Amino acid sequence: MEERKIALREILKKDPADVAEVLSELSDEQAAELVHKLFLRHAAAEPLGEMEPDESADLVAKLDRKEASEILARMDPDDAADLLLELPENVQQELLSRLSKRDAEVLTDLLSYPPDTAGGLMSPEVIPLSLSMTVQEAIDLLRRRQEEAETVYYAYAVDDEGRLQGVLSLRDMALAPPGKELRDLVIRDAVTVPVDADVEEVARLFDKYDYFALPVVDSDNRLLGVITVDDVIDVMRDEATEDIYRAQAVPLEDRVDTPWFRSLRLRLPWLSFNLLTAFLAAAVVGAFESTIARVAALAIFMPVIAGQGGNAGMQTVTIVTRGIALGEVSKGEGWHLLAKEILLGLLNGIIIGVVVGVVAFVWKGELYLGLVAFLAMGLNMLAAGIAGTVIPLTLRALRLDPALASSIFLTTVTDVLGFAFLFVLARLILPAI
Amino acid sequence: MEERKIALREILKKDPADVAEVLSELSDEQAAELVHKLFLRHAAAEPLGEMEPDESADLVAKLDRKEASEILARMDPDDAADLLLELPENVQQELLSRLSKRDAEVLTDLLSYPPDTAGGLMSPEVIPLSLSMTVQEAIDLLRRRQEEAETVYYAYAVDDEGRLQGVLSLRDMALAPPGKELRDLVIRDAVTVPVDADVEEVARLFDKYDYFALPVVDSDNRLLGVITVDDVIDVMRDEATEDIYRAQAVPLEDRVDTPWFRSLRLRLPWLSFNLLTAFLAAAVVGAFESTIARVAALAIFMPVIAGQGGNAGMQTVTIVTRGIALGEVSKGEGWHLLAKEILLGLLNGIIIGVVVGVVAFVWKGELYLGLVAFLAMGLNMLAAGIAGTVIPLTLRALRLDPALASSIFLTTVTDVLGFAFLFVLARLILPAI
Repeated sequence: MEERKIALREILKKDPADVAEVLSELSDEQAAELVHKLFLRHAAAEPLGEMEPDESADLVAKLDRKEASEILARMDPDDAADLLLELPENVQQELLSRLSKRDAEVLTDLLSYPPDTAGGLMSPEVIPLSLSMTVQEAIDLLRRRQEEAETVYYAYAVDDEGRLQGVLSLRDMALAPPGKELRDLVIRDAVTVPVDADVEEVARLFDKYDYFALPVVDSDNRLLGVITVDDVIDVMRDEATEDIYRAQAVPLEDRVDTPWFRSLRLRLPWLSFNLLTAFLAAAVVGAFESTIARVAALAIFMPVIAGQGGNAGMQTVTIVTRGIALGEVSKGEGWHLLAKEILLGLLNGIIIGVVVGVVAFVWKGELYLGLVAFLAMGLNMLAAGIAGTVIPLTLRALRLDPALASSIFLTTVTDVLGFAFLFVLARLILPAI
Repeated sequence: MEERKIALREILKKDPADVAEVLSELSDEQAAELVHKLFLRHAAAEPLGEMEPDESADLVAKLDRKEASEILARMDPDDAADLLLELPENVQQELLSRLSKRDAEVLTDLLSYPPDTAGGLMSPEVIPLSLSMTVQEAIDLLRRRQEEAETVYYAYAVDDEGRLQGVLSLRDMALAPPGKELRDLVIRDAVTVPVDADVEEVARLFDKYDYFALPVVDSDNRLLGVITVDDVIDVMRDEATEDIYRAQAVPLEDRVDTPWFRSLRLRLPWLSFNLLTAFLAAAVVGAFESTIARVAALAIFMPVIAGQGGNAGMQTVTIVTRGIALGEVSKGEGWHLLAKEILLGLLNGIIIGVVVGVVAFVWKGELYLGLVAFLAMGLNMLAAGIAGTVIPLTLRALRLDPALASSIFLTTVTDVLGFAFLFVLARLILPAI
């Protein structure tokens, strides 16, 4: 008993992020028990806000509904909304019905924005100021209402209709003479985020402008909320994971700690899709079975032509996809990129093709085989450069993620074309066939 | 003439990040000219600090040395140090020699930390406070010296030896009664960053703790500087790019806007390395040339066995590598992961293997061929799961980036073993051979 008390006291001293980590590592039952104890000390909301929403939702679902709704009311609304989104509709509704009318409205509002937009990321807790206030009046107001604000490192000035007039940094306010009017401190032409902006676009704005928070506005420039940089860090990490996973056709939910039966179910669809494309390549080889029966040495060069094309194509896919993700490829630039990759494909194709051709000739002592290998390798490198550019650009034009299964699409092209080049050229050139 | 003046006036109104963008898009000559004009209006330092260091260094190298050193003196020291690092040694020394003794010392100090550590990321511009100060005294001090501080959203209290005592948020100070002593506001047990921490570790701390700035300390807990979240965002973006690039064996400097001749030179070494591994796979096929000559249908299943193994293995590599990057795989967890992937490899191997075996049997009407295809596919899926776990974990154990060329290593294993399984089993099982 004594031991437990000490443990709780130790935990209460920790940073909420550390408590969140402790909660993640406990069994579900133990975690729910700890949350209950923290709740009794008014210390449950912050750690839950620091956890991944799917984890915190699992925990909250195990709590008494009354307790859960009180914790939700104490959480930052943006974190509370993320948590609610992970709960079943009926639990969501029950918890919302237990909140105060104002709290419920704020959360319902937030839930109405798509989670992958600025609206889904913002906190509505912002205290609007008027330009006619003095610094002292503004600081007094912020002091009185600080509990309600997501961040007071910046404050926002609005007009009578709630339209954003400009940004004030708390730094400037704290360090300015108290009698100064806000209109003399305000930064007009502030960088704003449209409420419907995609989270990737939001991340790019933060990356570019180095602010700790940006105001979110609707199409009439009315101030709706604020996005802080800590939320954007989470977005950036998740977007990076998404891009890496999608390129390799890995399902997003499959992590190192996913149970094996779930991983199995998640990966099989992608493996099946890849299997279909592999049979496409196999069909091309099958069409030339008689050619292979006569010149079995051709099979030796199958992995070289296909593998090397796949590697070169993945280099191009990776550069183009990452360039798109970082906002470095504007809509008109596709042709320019394609021209560069065609040139590179040709040059790499000639260089690598010559090496492959010479090895084929020396290995098998057949000039014709060397010529076939050289040409097939060169053509496949060219095809790889083209496919490596066209696949991500096409996915973007279709409004899909440019990274989506790009490795499967690319290697299908380089396998199918690589084998086709190899065997068609063999039929045309090899004398014995 | 009039037009130019208006343009400059417009540019001076822009956010430094936007000016940086304009500079990046101009030709070298035009950009240098604009920097000169901005310099005359004391407005060159901020945009240069917002640019990528390699770009800003190119620009600064084109300026008059006196002008360049004056701009450097006005830049945030962490940005100035990053810029200097990109310049040739002699230019670096010349610029440092033109700075004031204090500025030069600060920069030389910063340059002495490895760029991929907390020391290389931090700004030394931090104003230490004493716990015995009142809030009013602290704010007055910060107000007087605000130009020197990288961020005043947090302030740091130190003892007489410079050892960190705790953190103060400007928010708490601005909103507290002016007469309160700092010792009553200070957050002790603050999260700190060791000066030699790796930048990835720094990014994880920011990701976890949601602070806007963290203090950097040496092994005696002496305050050396501060890292702000905007620098970490750049690190996170660059680390994500690095992980994505390394996995696909793409050279880090190769971007969408890299000139083609440079891309060619950058990519060829990796393509050559891949070519060597492709020949390894080819050698395995070559060893079974006589087998293929007798049963050409085996060649049809080469892309299926190898490609499917490669895809499954890359799923595993991707999950393990990303887990390591996110700090989710602690040192002892490798065996646990391996066990899971072996199980998944077996199960996926049986499922996919049965499909491949049945297709082989139906397609070619040969029960023996179906059996060979089933066994080779199943074994290669198992090998893929093992290799997909062991490759990144081995790279980490060797203190290399777990992502490094992982796609090349993995596909080499799945190609070589896939072909070996296919042909060895064929020799053992097919009756005609």
